[in-house]
Amino acid sequence: MRVFIAGVDGYLGWPLALSLARRGHDVGGADLYLRRDWVAEMGSQSATPIRRMTERLEAFRDNLGKNLEFRKGDLRDYTFVLNCFRAFQPEAIVHLGEMPSAPYSMMDLPHAAFTMTNNLIGTLNILYAMKECCPGAHLVKLGTMGEYGTPNLDIPEGVFTIEYRGRKDTLPFPRQAGSWYHQTKVHDSNNITLACRVWGLRATDIMQGVVFGTRIDEMGEDERVVTRFDFDQCFGTVLNRYCAQAVIGQPLSPFGKGRQRRGFLPLRDSMQCLGLTLENPPKAGEYRVFNQFEEVYDVTELAHKVQRVGEPLGLKVEIRRMENPRKEMEDHHYNPDHQKLLDLGYKPSHDVEAELKVMLNDLMRYRDRIQARKEALTPDIRWEGTRHKVRFL
Amino acid sequence: MRVFIAGVDGYLGWPLALSLARRGHDVGGADLYLRRDWVAEMGSQSATPIRRMTERLEAFRDNLGKNLEFRKGDLRDYTFVLNCFRAFQPEAIVHLGEMPSAPYSMMDLPHAAFTMTNNLIGTLNILYAMKECCPGAHLVKLGTMGEYGTPNLDIPEGVFTIEYRGRKDTLPFPRQAGSWYHQTKVHDSNNITLACRVWGLRATDIMQGVVFGTRIDEMGEDERVVTRFDFDQCFGTVLNRYCAQAVIGQPLSPFGKGRQRRGFLPLRDSMQCLGLTLENPPKAGEYRVFNQFEEVYDVTELAHKVQRVGEPLGLKVEIRRMENPRKEMEDHHYNPDHQKLLDLGYKPSHDVEAELKVMLNDLMRYRDRIQARKEALTPDIRWEGTRHKVRFL
Repeated sequence: MRVFIAGVDGYLGWPLALSLARRGHDVGGADLYLRRDWVAEMGSQSATPIRRMTERLEAFRDNLGKNLEFRKGDLRDYTFVLNCFRAFQPEAIVHLGEMPSAPYSMMDLPHAAFTMTNNLIGTLNILYAMKECCPGAHLVKLGTMGEYGTPNLDIPEGVFTIEYRGRKDTLPFPRQAGSWYHQTKVHDSNNITLACRVWGLRATDIMQGVVFGTRIDEMGEDERVVTRFDFDQCFGTVLNRYCAQAVIGQPLSPFGKGRQRRGFLPLRDSMQCLGLTLENPPKAGEYRVFNQFEEVYDVTELAHKVQRVGEPLGLKVEIRRMENPRKEMEDHHYNPDHQKLLDLGYKPSHDVEAELKVMLNDLMRYRDRIQARKEALTPDIRWEGTRHKVRFL
Repeated sequence: MRVFIAGVDGYLGWPLALSLARRGHDVGGADLYLRRDWVAEMGSQSATPIRRMTERLEAFRDNLGKNLEFRKGDLRDYTFVLNCFRAFQPEAIVHLGEMPSAPYSMMDLPHAAFTMTNNLIGTLNILYAMKECCPGAHLVKLGTMGEYGTPNLDIPEGVFTIEYRGRKDTLPFPRQAGSWYHQTKVHDSNNITLACRVWGLRATDIMQGVVFGTRIDEMGEDERVVTRFDFDQCFGTVLNRYCAQAVIGQPLSPFGKGRQRRGFLPLRDSMQCLGLTLENPPKAGEYRVFNQFEEVYDVTELAHKVQRVGEPLGLKVEIRRMENPRKEMEDHHYNPDHQKLLDLGYKPSHDVEAELKVMLNDLMRYRDRIQARKEALTPDIRWEGTRHKVRFL
């Protein structure tokens, strides 16, 4: 299958290219390297030293025996998107080219407006370019479990059938996003739904949980093909941040009560799920939603896992709760469905601790790079719009 | 009360300024005159000859005995919005400054992207400027009943309490918007919800039905203060288009089966409701939703009303169904709640035919202006993305 990855230079995009090529697909992709700039803006860097794209592409060819057809450009530029699709003729498009950080979007108005424009216009351009050039292609769009928020109900996969005042219908499950970033994902979901209904496009909207991990098997020992690993307050997800903290001897710091429950999955599971999704496309006009995660954990429980795994590796790991810079429920019901990918054959790795061991071992090699930017680990972006460092509780 | 109207040059904005001033409020406002440009772009003009803003402002002063504090500018420019609020110090802001047409947004990508950016960034700027300058002010935001789409359930006002798998919660009612324009209204609703929750702003989100009418009493006989009246395929709402068609002897043309049911209200009721909303603000941090319409009608039923009212005025009115350029349900359940405004004291005028008589009489004076642009009445913008005139069925 010919798969085009928008955002192929990113944390998920790069390993996805490797993984899909290994599964026998032809891979193309685009990126503007914005993630590199955003992380630099946060005063941070990837813990893993990642190569520039030219070198990555060379390593890709060396490892996979084929080219990744790459173009540098901006998804906000319709001509660029259209030219990409015209040249590559994709059968599937994986859209990972969005600004993916809640705190980054909440920093101030310019960051909020950028997030809104970048994410919505990028997706709109992709929808119009598909319509014009490859209307039969399958759009796989990365959303987030955060679209649902934390309702006091079980969360279905996208839609639910309800009775209300004696009548019945199947409707989109209400979304209650908690940041501008999360809102853009909801807006995109709504826009993609419309494009499928009105133009007959086909799409899978992935409500993904929190991803963690430093590697997938396809990376082998070639350092040139490693993926980025962020630990700053904006682009480091919680379990990745814990591991970075553990490696430099900083306390792991759940926010507030620390009873926030989320769906999590290792990077390798994310790749497996995206592969399965691509290989099992929806029919024309269908908009479907997958909840993509391995299991639900609370963030304190995960901190204890890191502690447990770190001990035998010689890491003395402390856990100290921190002020919560966000506005969110800190102790709540959380029971989302995640059956559809299992039905397609997803085999969850189900061994978080084994994955954490790999991660900590990997990260210990880059301890100096984390240490050098450890300031970036402490949040100062607050949901109420001010910016000052949070304190330990 | 000091009320700032964003979009004060528009169909609703201008009469609202008059109506609020008559109710004793101090009115400020902004506009970029984009509506005038969009209608010209559609090859049309307002049936009523409206004056340029300088003359309108003079007439406002002559009629109301006070100034309307006006600034020309773009809501997409944060500095402009902030300066407006700093200078005027509003206690309430009515946001009517969005691109309000479904077909206009569906025309092509540039129009879709413009609608997305204009509406979302304008609202985001207003939210940030409120937060910075007048966090206690009340935002009254015009949404649309179209946010809900046409589910097979009764439609509550914004939220509903449901039981699902044995658990209960009060959640936003699912939105299923049918055009890019309608989607922007959904996106805005979501964004405003977040701003209220995170920053403690207060807002009323008005899900308004289809407005019709040429005047409100406050306009008296001064032609300089008349509001615009559009009849083109993009900016003319259905009942207004019917009346324009009746006046020039064109058949009234319900789309498709013609059994689409919508909530409708006369312009004077819209003004009454907005006045009541402003005079009964929500509490700090509250986001509330009002469904604002007088009654539900189907579009064929309304065509017959126009026919009936036109007859004694000497108008020979034919009704002929047309191809539907939209993708929408043409025969469906529709039973939305609309209690909250009644509870605040809204007295519906409940006499559509009396209103239609006023409209037809007003429009007969401007028959030549409609006749001159009658081409603009026939839709050619199709939801599937092509553009060619629809035919009679």
